[in-house]
Amino acid sequence: MRETGDAFHLAIPAKDLEEAYAFYVTGLGCQLARRYPDRLTLDFFGDQVVCHLWEQVECEPELYPRHFGVTFREHGDWERLRRLADVRGLPYFAKPFLRFEGMIEEHSSFVLCDPSNNLLEFKHYADPRMMY
Amino acid sequence: MRETGDAFHLAIPAKDLEEAYAFYVTGLGCQLARRYPDRLTLDFFGDQVVCHLWEQVECEPELYPRHFGVTFREHGDWERLRRLADVRGLPYFAKPFLRFEGMIEEHSSFVLCDPSNNLLEFKHYADPRMMY
Amino acid sequence: MRETGDAFHLAIPAKDLEEAYAFYVTGLGCQLARRYPDRLTLDFFGDQVVCHLWEQVECEPELYPRHFGVTFREHGDWERLRRLADVRGLPYFAKPFLRFEGMIEEHSSFVLCDPSNNLLEFKHYADPRMMY
Amino acid sequence: MRETGDAFHLAIPAKDLEEAYAFYVTGLGCQLARRYPDRLTLDFFGDQVVCHLWEQVECEPELYPRHFGVTFREHGDWERLRRLADVRGLPYFAKPFLRFEGMIEEHSSFVLCDPSNNLLEFKHYADPRMMY
Amino acid sequence: MRETGDAFHLAIPAKDLEEAYAFYVTGLGCQLARRYPDRLTLDFFGDQVVCHLWEQVECEPELYPRHFGVTFREHGDWERLRRLADVRGLPYFAKPFLRFEGMIEEHSSFVLCDPSNNLLEFKHYADPRMMY
Amino acid sequence: MRETGDAFHLAIPAKDLEEAYAFYVTGLGCQLARRYPDRLTLDFFGDQVVCHLWEQVECEPELYPRHFGVTFREHGDWERLRRLADVRGLPYFAKPFLRFEGMIEEHSSFVLCDPSNNLLEFKHYADPRMMY
Amino acid sequence: MRETGDAFHLAIPAKDLEEAYAFYVTGLGCQLARRYPDRLTLDFFGDQVVCHLWEQVECEPELYPRHFGVTFREHGDWERLRRLADVRGLPYFAKPFLRFEGMIEEHSSFVLCDPSNNLLEFKHYADPRMMY
Amino acid sequence: MRETGDAFHLAIPAKDLEEAYAFYVTGLGCQLARRYPDRLTLDFFGDQVVCHLWEQVECEPELYPRHFGVTFREHGDWERLRRLADVRGLPYFAKPFLRFEGMIEEHSSFVLCDPSNNLLEFKHYADPRMMY
Repeated sequence: MRETGDAFHLAIPAKDLEEAYAFYVTGLGCQLARRYPDRLTLDFFGDQVVCHLWEQVECEPELYPRHFGVTFREHGDWERLRRLADVRGLPYFAKPFLRFEGMIEEHSSFVLCDPSNNLLEFKHYADPRMMY
Repeated sequence: MRETGDAFHLAIPAKDLEEAYAFYVTGLGCQLARRYPDRLTLDFFGDQVVCHLWEQVECEPELYPRHFGVTFREHGDWERLRRLADVRGLPYFAKPFLRFEGMIEEHSSFVLCDPSNNLLEFKHYADPRMMY
Repeated sequence: MRETGDAFHLAIPAKDLEEAYAFYVTGLGCQLARRYPDRLTLDFFGDQVVCHLWEQVECEPELYPRHFGVTFREHGDWERLRRLADVRGLPYFAKPFLRFEGMIEEHSSFVLCDPSNNLLEFKHYADPRMMY
Repeated sequence: MRETGDAFHLAIPAKDLEEAYAFYVTGLGCQLARRYPDRLTLDFFGDQVVCHLWEQVECEPELYPRHFGVTFREHGDWERLRRLADVRGLPYFAKPFLRFEGMIEEHSSFVLCDPSNNLLEFKHYADPRMMY
Repeated sequence: MRETGDAFHLAIPAKDLEEAYAFYVTGLGCQLARRYPDRLTLDFFGDQVVCHLWEQVECEPELYPRHFGVTFREHGDWERLRRLADVRGLPYFAKPFLRFEGMIEEHSSFVLCDPSNNLLEFKHYADPRMMY
Repeated sequence: MRETGDAFHLAIPAKDLEEAYAFYVTGLGCQLARRYPDRLTLDFFGDQVVCHLWEQVECEPELYPRHFGVTFREHGDWERLRRLADVRGLPYFAKPFLRFEGMIEEHSSFVLCDPSNNLLEFKHYADPRMMY
Repeated sequence: MRETGDAFHLAIPAKDLEEAYAFYVTGLGCQLARRYPDRLTLDFFGDQVVCHLWEQVECEPELYPRHFGVTFREHGDWERLRRLADVRGLPYFAKPFLRFEGMIEEHSSFVLCDPSNNLLEFKHYADPRMMY
Repeated sequence: MRETGDAFHLAIPAKDLEEAYAFYVTGLGCQLARRYPDRLTLDFFGDQVVCHLWEQVECEPELYPRHFGVTFREHGDWERLRRLADVRGLPYFAKPFLRFEGMIEEHSSFVLCDPSNNLLEFKHYADPRMMY
């Protein structure tokens, strides 16, 4: 189990900070920690994600080898985020599905695509010991 | 503050899984959760990092726009990891330094480079409210 | 001791939301949770403060009978916020002082004034049992 | 998530301390921390509310721009407080209702009025990420 | 370690509820939870102590076989309470002393006497494993 | 809410330490922390109860003005202890009953009698805010 | 309740480290912390188990006097591990059964056998106070 | 980090339960949870150790391949236990020493021997990430 006091942090490219704000804050419901001319700093589900203004982003979103997200301990948290994505019309890269069905590694997942083609996967494992 | 039960997860490319194992497990001291022919799943400071076998990695490591790491709450944790990097000879991309000195956002930082040119930044803020 | 899962919430008037943003987010370092045309919703030290756009605010700031703020458990947290107020030049209504010196109720305090004349007091008690 | 060790504090006017005691302690079930000739100090759901004796209070209670209260994490806690208000006949300013139905920001709410026309709102969000 | 959600509760006699209020709330700084004609209900360091109005109390305070109190985990908490007893002039039955010096069971202690001759012992063990 | 690190402690008389051991350890399932010729030290639901060997105990058990026990946060914990009392045949002073039915202070309770006529009450409140 | 920061550690013999890796990491889903020529260090359900390469192991697995394992607080955790053992075909020494049925000490249990004939028992008590 | 609600459990042989009681309860300060004719159940630093009466124990204590113990997070806890072992004259198999000095795996350790030649190692790592 991770330490509550520490935070994971991730820097990603954003081709337009207004779009990033609209996706992450207004859409996903992340909190805005700080805003500079060249970046947004977000409290992303308790961790830090920084969107750096960057002209060159992926032309096509691809799941491998890079993506990021949250694995929820409680199914209800995953379910509520899925509902938020539906109600607010966030763009899916992959609709909710079940991976490795019947195996111990079975997990629910869906993948969103941000305006700069970064992919965000949100998962829930039936067995929380498989979260790593 | 983040939830202890959830986990951030990040997928990154690795051109060679043995090298990735040597860097992350033997070097950084992360725990190996699972190993498949095409990936390593790591418990990375309590979060999940997955190294996907991928031929094409960055030729030159660059800090922007992509990097990841941990922001420690306690300076001692940052200091102990810095010492580990020194004692075990992990490759620095940027040696320990102080950024934004004298400002509220002041933080200690160092950046490591994994064998596939992914960059890992480890930070500690004098004021923990600036972690986001 | 309070429950971590619950949140106190407070609604206050703001005569200008840009000014409120500048004071609370850029200045005090609170996170912006949501923004609507008529209000800002803030994560204020873990609780919720909502700034409602309101033409009529106090002409002169007065400490009684209304003010709000945070009582920190750790003196270091109070001290860091005091330093933030100094470094970033936030407007003091009352500079740091010691109240009830020598008594059990002794506490350190300072009071800031937001752009709409709402007063914010930040306290630290030598004896944490006096926090209530 | 807020820190358990810290406390929000709020000072409000009370035109009569006996009435305030009857409403907050005997009625709402808050604990009395301290009592002075000119104020009551309350442990209000784990935070500090101070009722200052003040002649001038609002003639008519109005929800905007000032009110305060608690956002509960668990619906059961909100429900139990609603029941307490009913059983003990606390005065409602607004009976329990659902705001923003069908939206992600949907929450249950009711508003009480204290004897000095301060308004107290108690909320529960279907999605706890909306608490801020 | 004890569960945070549960509470120990203890009922004791009090020959006068005003005196009990003065000793426990104004003096010791406990919070008043409820007050009835025949009893006071106190939040005593996080547990529940109920003072029942009772004519017959001990003529002389005696430490054995009945007394109650708190064993603090942190020496600072014990020290702060000792200082409170001094500053506020609470009546000692036994001044601060060290029991079992040099042994593993060594602990600091002092004993207060309430107005109904109930004795309260406050302890701190050098080795917290000896708290039981 | 109480601090997990601290412990309530209570000293009570016991006319026979073997009987006390049989009631508290073998019966109630408390853990024995230490045993001396003149006393037993128990980990009583996370707090400390010390049974001092004492010739003179109450001839008849009486609930007022002295008794002690645990108020459980979760009804299941109260229910499990009630079942333990039944299965192991511990002596009831008062069988499980509901006090203050229909009021906010409503709680389930039962009272056990130890071999020295000390009374132990175990409670559960429908509304946990009434635990104090 | 145990301290989260500390860890139990146990050293056991393993006649073959590859087999131990297959059983503990690939099978049981424990994380590999470190690997040396003569031992594997495992994060075993949050505690440390070290498998030392050792030629001489038990010819026949026997439950007494030596075995080890985990007692789960939540039945769901026990149930999930039982399902993992079934789905992945881990070798049972004793299939799931109920011990001390109808008594307060009643618990669910199953016992696995590792490749070096070490026995692992996984338990869940109906009454968590019986975990010790 | 391990779950607080779960417990590790370990069964070991004891050739004499009185001796085991004297070593574990009176000496080491573990709490006795239950006692049966053929075993003692101990709360061993928050985990469960059961001493089963067994005639055949090791003739000579040997550290490999079997031993058990606790790895403390805080050096002070290790130091206090070392002092307890000295003050109470518990039998050392290995006096306190430093292993892997100067390496990241560096840890303080000492090993005690129980009356049935079971060995108990108590450790503290300079870097808590090495606890596994």
